[in-house]
Order: sequence, then structure tokens, then C-alpha cells
Amino acid sequence: MQVISGGITAAKGFEASGAAAGIKYSNRNDMAFIYSTVPCTVAGTFTTNVVKAAPVIWDMDVVKKSPYAQAVVVNAGIANACTGQQGLDYCKAEAEKVSELLNVPADAVLVGSTGVIGMQLPMDKVLKGIEMLVDAKSDSEEAGSIAAQSIMTTDTVPKEIAVTVEIGGSTVTIGGMSKGSGMIHPNMCTMLGYVATDVAIEKSLLQEALSDIVKDTFNMITVDGDTSTNDTLLVLANGLAENSLISEKNGDYEAFKEGLFYVCRFLARKMASDGEGATKLFEAKVVNAKSKEDARTLSRAIVGSNLSKAAIYGCDANFGRFLCAMGYSGAQFDQMDVELYFESKNGRLKVFEMGVPLEFDEEKAVEIMKADEVTVYVDMHEGDAEATAWGCDLTYDYVKINADYRS
Amino acid sequence: MQVISGGITAAKGFEASGAAAGIKYSNRNDMAFIYSTVPCTVAGTFTTNVVKAAPVIWDMDVVKKSPYAQAVVVNAGIANACTGQQGLDYCKAEAEKVSELLNVPADAVLVGSTGVIGMQLPMDKVLKGIEMLVDAKSDSEEAGSIAAQSIMTTDTVPKEIAVTVEIGGSTVTIGGMSKGSGMIHPNMCTMLGYVATDVAIEKSLLQEALSDIVKDTFNMITVDGDTSTNDTLLVLANGLAENSLISEKNGDYEAFKEGLFYVCRFLARKMASDGEGATKLFEAKVVNAKSKEDARTLSRAIVGSNLSKAAIYGCDANFGRFLCAMGYSGAQFDQMDVELYFESKNGRLKVFEMGVPLEFDEEKAVEIMKADEVTVYVDMHEGDAEATAWGCDLTYDYVKINADYRS
Repeated sequence: MQVISGGITAAKGFEASGAAAGIKYSNRNDMAFIYSTVPCTVAGTFTTNVVKAAPVIWDMDVVKKSPYAQAVVVNAGIANACTGQQGLDYCKAEAEKVSELLNVPADAVLVGSTGVIGMQLPMDKVLKGIEMLVDAKSDSEEAGSIAAQSIMTTDTVPKEIAVTVEIGGSTVTIGGMSKGSGMIHPNMCTMLGYVATDVAIEKSLLQEALSDIVKDTFNMITVDGDTSTNDTLLVLANGLAENSLISEKNGDYEAFKEGLFYVCRFLARKMASDGEGATKLFEAKVVNAKSKEDARTLSRAIVGSNLSKAAIYGCDANFGRFLCAMGYSGAQFDQMDVELYFESKNGRLKVFEMGVPLEFDEEKAVEIMKADEVTVYVDMHEGDAEATAWGCDLTYDYVKINADYRS
Repeated sequence: MQVISGGITAAKGFEASGAAAGIKYSNRNDMAFIYSTVPCTVAGTFTTNVVKAAPVIWDMDVVKKSPYAQAVVVNAGIANACTGQQGLDYCKAEAEKVSELLNVPADAVLVGSTGVIGMQLPMDKVLKGIEMLVDAKSDSEEAGSIAAQSIMTTDTVPKEIAVTVEIGGSTVTIGGMSKGSGMIHPNMCTMLGYVATDVAIEKSLLQEALSDIVKDTFNMITVDGDTSTNDTLLVLANGLAENSLISEKNGDYEAFKEGLFYVCRFLARKMASDGEGATKLFEAKVVNAKSKEDARTLSRAIVGSNLSKAAIYGCDANFGRFLCAMGYSGAQFDQMDVELYFESKNGRLKVFEMGVPLEFDEEKAVEIMKADEVTVYVDMHEGDAEATAWGCDLTYDYVKINADYRS
């Protein structure tokens, strides 16, 4: 597997674009487009929130029922969530507009929205935006970057990645983009993530690979514990790499899965480190747990705790907060078996051992925690399962961003 | 039922005191004492956190096994959590000191701690503190107030309350005190709460009343989603009101329960409104839910959401965040059945009706949300169960307090 430059347009046959439709922002792009020149196999995972946004309901239907997909229209600024029947009608209108302009079936068009909940989309602007998107689409690397920028809301950096994997003599490319950065919490957690690949693979296997990978990537990040109404992750696979069709769990499947895992993990970590107001990536690694599920639960609880996140922000090696979060996570364990370390590129420090707090060098601890990526490493001494979760610190800016997001 | 002045010493036979032992704070009291002149029936509820602090383990044992209880020693500053066998030994040493000074059995002495996790108590100071506490104890109202002040950590106000109820011709008094104000989340959520009453009641009924009441009072508040290692709520009942012993669920039991409910609800709300950094009490009332459990789950999710809490701080009527929190709470419902209002002493405003966002007056919304107690009122139109949960807003000060709590 090799990381290459580029993003959503890296794979053969994929085009993208961005447009400034003026939905909520002025002076910046707020719509993005992904298009494949040929029909794609599609897989997706979606929010588990009972209050699903209209585009989530639309996309779930497309992924489940349509024979193929070929385009994705995304807007930032308004989430089209809690918008009743009108919101659903608007999704259909977007798909029909693309259908009309590009001669693809409306049920091959996916839609995505992110932004304020409880507002209707200004459809005149959105439909004009779609015209601009279709006109501007290109398979260039720059077009992919523009699309990644166009879906940002409170994100501070665009998030894109591309890799290649060799599958039976063919080079398969996997490109992806995503956006955060608030209302982020495990359970299909990312707001929006898109992966475009030229692999040839059967739909059921694409979905299985994705669902499996999500558990250890997107579902292991949290910014604020709020599972969004709009979370959507889609993978479009158009087969143009001309590898022999992956139709069973063989070596080809594993090679593709490795690449897809890399792309998803990269985008997930990137979202965590760019969480609203964040100054740091906060990683929790739990090893030697009784079960994989316990390891996931414990690591997510650590990065999800407001008190832990505030301590990470303040470079305060207040390890009791991390143990406290593990204690209420729902996993059962004996504190007398636990070892806890702080780690970063600046060093490693053991602070708790088998139920007993250790004397440690506070200056050294601050030095370690000052890094831009800080890891809490926990050895449970109970089994051999491990998991890693990602979050960010809790800062004044998180409060600032969210105390008046709408204005 | 009547609210009277006073707190933990209001009921007959109860004495209290505070002392400056210098455990962590200087120039303020950091230890408190509650004492009954006669043996008490005792009931308690404790944290569900797997990582239980040493005093929680000690108290659970006393409540379960001791024939009676007679004194409580509490310290602020250090939580005696994650302190291994030594921490447990220290609880025993505290109880033995009280036993020696007051000639009560050590297993009749309860202990409580709140503060930093993962540090050992300075036992020389603690034992001297106990001598001061015993010397200073008094049944005056002032002594009760001093005790309530002495258990504070980041609390900005002491929390105390007293009521009387008439039970079969006798006046029964119930007094209580508690402290917050971070690491507060449902599941036996308060850090420390103590209730002293002169009612005569059988132990099993006292425990049953308490366990029942906690579900709708202390377990319905949240400050930051972090369930503490030290949560403890104790009720001591010494029988000096001389009512005829409550030994069945009759009218006397209900009258006592009403008073105890009032005391617990008052202390719980007070803790929520004094959450770390809070400027407001944030209440969520869910009515016409399918079941009591659903109503509790939904209302707790609303007040627990960081995004909702930040919106309450910013007076931003961003109702989608409240619906989003309900959606990921775990309760099942149809958003098309939901009505949502903002309420305070400044008015009432409907913002969402049967799946559709309403146009509303933003200025009116800000006016309502500016109040020091703001309610989100949700009608589910699904059944007849209701519940209320309490939290607070998320502010810069919460981050400030917790980014460097230890220093």
C-alpha cells in the first residue's frame, strides 16, 4: 500500500467540483460534487440517531435499493435536519436536477448536508449551485481539493487522502475526503465522509468491509459526545482499475480492505484533531483488555470525558480523571490490575500502577502533554484485546464556537 | 410539609461542625462532621462507577452490615480514590479515631472524601482535624451551615435545606446538605449528600424510600457527564421525633417520603445550578412520553449534551441540538410527533411542532433564555409519562476550572 497525493478524484473516472451557492456563507464555496463517469457500486454507514436528517433517509434508500450510484451533491451551512416532508422533497429535487443535467437516474444520485438543524434549504440557490457544480466538474487533483474545502463548516483544515494498493496486477486507487468538526461522537460519528475508488468489488463485500472498518476508525472518534443527525459515510467503487472482480474474501479483498482502512483511519484521526476549538489530538490506547468490545468501550470513554479533555488542554497529568472515565464506561475491571501512562513524541511516563498512584516528575508530565498529539496508554492486564480511540481537548474556543453557532 | 430554616442539624439530636485541617486548602475549613446523640438507622446510595473510592467502599460496608450508624466524617481537597489498600486503611483509621474520642463503635462511623483523585490523604492532619471536629460539634443552626460550607470544593454556594412533616401527631424534621459541582452525572450522581432526620423508620423502608427518590432527583442531574468515583448519599434517621415507628408503606411512610423527596430534589437542583462554571440552571421537562424510563432518558440526554449546554449559555434557540440529543439518547420516537418549547420566567415560545420548525421571534427567544433558570419543554404526544432533568450551561469557566484543577 502506498500513500499518494490527491483526494476524492485520485481514483480513475472520478470528477469533483465546488461552488459558492450562497446558502449560508458568503465569499466561500458551500457546495461540493462528486461524479463518476461510469456507474458505481455503493456502500454506506449512517447515523444511529433516531432523528435522521432528510439526506440520510434519502441516501439510505439509494444505498439499499438502487442498482448503482453515480453522483453525490453536498452542501454546507444548513443540515436539512428536522425539516419534515419538505426536507425530504428537497432531497428528491436535488437528485432530479442532477439527473436532468447529466442524464443519470435520480435514484443514482446521493445527497448530503451539514450545518444548522431545523432550517429549510433555499432551493433556488441550491439548484443554481448544482448547475455550477456540474459545469465545473473535473478529474484534476485541484478539483478534489476544492470539493474537500467546500464541505467544511467549523473545520479549520480540509481533510483528504489517497492511497494505492496492488490487487492481482492492477493498481487500485482509493481517495477520500471528510469534514467534522462538532456534533461528533461514536456511532457512525463523522458528519460527512466520502470515499471514491476504482476497485471492482461486489456490493455486499464492499458494505461488509466498510461496516467492519468503521468500528475501528470513524466510530472510535469523539469531539463532544453529540451523535449528529446527519452522519454519513459513503464509498463509491466504479471498477475502472480493471482488477478481477472481488467476489470473495480472498487476498484481493484483504489488500483492498487494508487500503480502505488506512483511508478511513486517516480521515477519522484528522477529524478528531480538528474538533471544534481543539488544540491537540487526544488518543487513548487500551491494551490487554478482556475483549475487543471492552477495549473499545474503555478507550472511547477516556477520550469522551469532558474532565479528561480539559486536563489534556491544561497539560494537567490528573490521571484520576481517566481512571474515573474508564470506571463509568460500562466495562467491568479491577482497578488493582491497571497501569496508566502518558505518552507523546516528548516521552513516556508511568503514573499509576496496579491500583497505586506513583510519584512522578510533574515537569516531565507537562513536557509530554505539551505535544500536539498526546496518548493515554492503559494496560489492563486482563487479556489480549486492544483498541485505540481519538478525540481532542476541550477548550474555551469550543464553548465560543458553540455558544452562538447560528449567528 | 413545611420548609424551615437550617440544614443538617435541624432534626432533633443531630450535631455538626467544621474544621480547617489544612489537607489541601489553606485559610478555609476542609473537614466536616455530622453526629447523632443516639444511634441511627442508615440508608445510602453510591456511585455505580467501577472505580470506587475507598470511602465509598467503607460506607457501603457500614450501610450493609453495621447494626447502626452514628457519625460521619467528611473531608474536601483529596478524594481518596485510586489509592489502593492504603486508602482503605485510612478510612478505618478515621473511623477508629472517632470511635476512640466519642465511644461509638468504629463500624458506626461513616467517612466521605471529595477532591483530587489519586493522592493519599495526609493522615496526621486528618486525625488532628477529627479532634477539632469533635471538640467543635454543636446542634446549632450555625454549626450545620459551617459543615455545609466545609465540604465545598469548586462549589460557589453551600447547599442546605430543612423541612418538617407531620406524622401521626409528631413533627418529623428532615435536614440535608450536599456539595457538587464537577464530575456530576446521573447514576448516583452527586459527589456527596447527607440527610439527617429524627424520624423513626425501619431500615429497609428508609432504603427503599431513598432508592426510589434518587431516581427522580439526584440521578436526574448532570454537570459534565462524568460519573464520579466518590458519589455518596446517606440518610441517617435517629427516631427522636418519637413518631410511631414506620414499618409499612402507610400514610406515615408517604408523608415522610414526600419530605425526603423535597429535600433531595432541592439539593439536586441546587447542585445542577451551581455546576462548575455555570451561569444558569438548565431544566428539561419531557411530557407525554411512552414510559417513565423514556421520559427520564430523553430529559437527561437534553441537559447532558455539550452542544445544548453551550447554546443555553449563548441564549441561542438552536432547538435542533435538543432534538439531536433526544435522537441519540437511546429512546425510540418519531420526530413527527414532537413539540418543543423554550420556557422561563420571561415567557414561553414554541419552536418546533410535529416534525416542522416554526418561524419564531429571535428577540423573544433570547429574552426567555436570558433568565437564570431556562426550561426546554418537550411534548412527545406518545403516552402519559413525564420526567424532569437538571443541568447547567457550558461556559468558558468550566474549561478554566478544569484545565488546571490540581494547581
